[in-house]
Amino acid sequence: MSTADSPQTFRAIDVIRKKRDGVELSRGEIEGLVNAYTQDQIPDYQVSAWLMAVVLRGMTRAETAALTEAMLHSGEVLDLSYLSAKKVDKHSTGGVGDKTSLVLAPVVAAAGLVVPMISGRGLGHTGGTLDKLEAIPGFNVNLSVSRFREVLGKCGCCMIGQTAEIAPADRKLYALRDVTGTVESPYLICASIMSKKLAEGVDALVLDVKTGSGAFMKSEKDAAFLAELMVETGERMGKKMVALITDMDQPLGNMIGNALEVVEVVEVLRGGGPEDLRLLCHELAGWMLHLGGALRTVAEGRQRSAELISSGRALEQFRQMVEMQGGDPRAIDDVKRLPRAQRTMELLSPGAGYLSSVQCEQVGSACVILGGGRERKEDAVDPAVGIVLHKKVGERVEAGETLATIHYNSEARVAGAMRLLEKSFVIARVPPSDKRPLIHRIIGGASGKSAENN
Amino acid sequence: MSTADSPQTFRAIDVIRKKRDGVELSRGEIEGLVNAYTQDQIPDYQVSAWLMAVVLRGMTRAETAALTEAMLHSGEVLDLSYLSAKKVDKHSTGGVGDKTSLVLAPVVAAAGLVVPMISGRGLGHTGGTLDKLEAIPGFNVNLSVSRFREVLGKCGCCMIGQTAEIAPADRKLYALRDVTGTVESPYLICASIMSKKLAEGVDALVLDVKTGSGAFMKSEKDAAFLAELMVETGERMGKKMVALITDMDQPLGNMIGNALEVVEVVEVLRGGGPEDLRLLCHELAGWMLHLGGALRTVAEGRQRSAELISSGRALEQFRQMVEMQGGDPRAIDDVKRLPRAQRTMELLSPGAGYLSSVQCEQVGSACVILGGGRERKEDAVDPAVGIVLHKKVGERVEAGETLATIHYNSEARVAGAMRLLEKSFVIARVPPSDKRPLIHRIIGGASGKSAENN
Repeated sequence: MSTADSPQTFRAIDVIRKKRDGVELSRGEIEGLVNAYTQDQIPDYQVSAWLMAVVLRGMTRAETAALTEAMLHSGEVLDLSYLSAKKVDKHSTGGVGDKTSLVLAPVVAAAGLVVPMISGRGLGHTGGTLDKLEAIPGFNVNLSVSRFREVLGKCGCCMIGQTAEIAPADRKLYALRDVTGTVESPYLICASIMSKKLAEGVDALVLDVKTGSGAFMKSEKDAAFLAELMVETGERMGKKMVALITDMDQPLGNMIGNALEVVEVVEVLRGGGPEDLRLLCHELAGWMLHLGGALRTVAEGRQRSAELISSGRALEQFRQMVEMQGGDPRAIDDVKRLPRAQRTMELLSPGAGYLSSVQCEQVGSACVILGGGRERKEDAVDPAVGIVLHKKVGERVEAGETLATIHYNSEARVAGAMRLLEKSFVIARVPPSDKRPLIHRIIGGASGKSAENN
Repeated sequence: MSTADSPQTFRAIDVIRKKRDGVELSRGEIEGLVNAYTQDQIPDYQVSAWLMAVVLRGMTRAETAALTEAMLHSGEVLDLSYLSAKKVDKHSTGGVGDKTSLVLAPVVAAAGLVVPMISGRGLGHTGGTLDKLEAIPGFNVNLSVSRFREVLGKCGCCMIGQTAEIAPADRKLYALRDVTGTVESPYLICASIMSKKLAEGVDALVLDVKTGSGAFMKSEKDAAFLAELMVETGERMGKKMVALITDMDQPLGNMIGNALEVVEVVEVLRGGGPEDLRLLCHELAGWMLHLGGALRTVAEGRQRSAELISSGRALEQFRQMVEMQGGDPRAIDDVKRLPRAQRTMELLSPGAGYLSSVQCEQVGSACVILGGGRERKEDAVDPAVGIVLHKKVGERVEAGETLATIHYNSEARVAGAMRLLEKSFVIARVPPSDKRPLIHRIIGGASGKSAENN
């Protein structure tokens, strides 16, 4: 008897109905659905109905873990046991000007841990790590798994895009969610992120969950909910986990746009760069080093991060990774070799006062209009264009002073970007009464010594 | 510029997201979705996600009306204005042993109204009018619209299946709902039923909404909710509407199975037949005649229904319709000419007492097992098989007395049917304390003189 006729056969319709009616699904039912879909045995229209039921009914912790594991095991889980060091990674839910990954990978690798980082591309107003890396001439993010393992062995860090082998269920499910209004579910987001990150074979994972006007989760409550879900899911699978809820109410650092962000990364790796970006990098690196077992406390981890930068070892590590991934290391030594836009245009402050807020998502969208990001997955990206901010929220601004510089290549595009940018800055007569913290909250991390106050 | 590039273009994803978030959709958005889907411009997987959002978020009355109208206008609306008489129809939500349509069409046509009845087939435990009609040798339910109009003009009633011209959106949506767990929504059920029934071009519609163990809506509350929704939707579109919530906690009449039900219909049209079936037919006919304007009150309508049966005019009308639709009228004169099963088997009462309940859905399923109904749409139906009940709920039963007779053609099937049937009858030592009414509630009907007490 073929399995198609077997009474034990998985019936998608039953699983859809159960979820619709708010009944908890078993691990077997969730595995059945994910496996059948990945193997093209059930049609898109059944899965999209199920996804909508999940969006509106939610999932229990056990269901979320089962979904994550089913998606994780739909593909290859990297076996990095040939490397004796602990493997650790960081994941950000995405924002504007968030280039911490490019700093963290070399810092943490320089401390002796392994960072097997598989990242994504930018979509909508948020940038993507792969696009930033590709701004470096020659940099190849499409390595085979065997080459990825080789680079990790030699360099301690490697940064690539998702491969066909990693969590194919997620690729298929995400494409469907994208066109069926089922992206916005913390349970589905958790399973999507965690299945890919756990496929890297890491021992510990630091999550940077953004909140604020430029974040996917605007409210801190939603961000914390997602963070808790991911931490618990990872811990159920034996991983050391922490989530930092960090601010994305204004862009991180001063530069937005792929090549510009590489410039800022190099600044930070040389010991400079804007304070918020520097602080967040040290905080995240501190947690990665702590959870990865390299240092006893987060404070010691932060300290080590600062030392690895001031000694130049992190920059040298970055240079090595760039070279091993086909990139031109001279572009790191001399950032003028990175792609540069032909023209610039300045946004001047219409009056004097204090910068009271920045519409962070609009700034990201202005960069997309310039060609620096993509509205649709198939769009090409111009690495050279972007925006340099000259003021952070709370700073004093004089009338006619430059708020931002637009780097652009197309007159047709700059007008629209400028219009959006003009509306993004709010100048008030008095300074904002309360400053949003850079780090709002820390969730998890208890499996190691919690050390925020050290 | 093509409409595909126009900014006014309907975007399915926006409509899905709105419904997901509980925002009321505009008439234009609902029309856009239905039209785009009917014209194959949006894929199944987007519509199934939207359907699931409708199931879980519900719809407002305005949305339900807009959906009904969009589905109605996806195809042809019959223009029966060449017939001066009022057009009236009845729709039942389906049950076991419900053969009232075959009685009502000739009765109401004999009173001078037009009954343009487009019906469905049986699915699952419920029977279907088309299957019953096809038990009459030669009867053709697949008439063209022009032949349908011709028969209506000559005979006053005609009973056919859904044609390709009528509400194509419903056919496509129903097929998708069937496989995506999105059948069970009163809003979607209302739109499906009403779009088809209003496409018949009727002036008045009587709804028979079943409640009880054999009904689609088991609880009276759910049945009443659906009834109110349909009455209001019809009234918004200028139709005279009433819904009767009627009992389906035991089969209607004594016979279940296609040819057997035709036998019982002929009995009723000859002035005999079981009391519950007779009463319900008069009640529904009374409302049809009243709302169709043939008689001043429902009571007068009931009276006329009884007269048309006792005079033989209704039977003659039925005979004429059968003949005009290619059926053999001799099978009406002599029901032994209808298909008959080769064998019978009796279910005897295991003890003495009172029949306290019948698991109505199981009785329907037993008939399906015999081959008298279909589990899947593509199954063939054996018109001859079925079940004859000898006791109604509340009646005295002696040990060894026959509860039911199974008419069957296959030894392989009868055992399973008998096992199910044995579990369907509950015999108690005392009579059931309260008798369920045949008619639970009447909703609507206010557009004419409400006359239940006359």
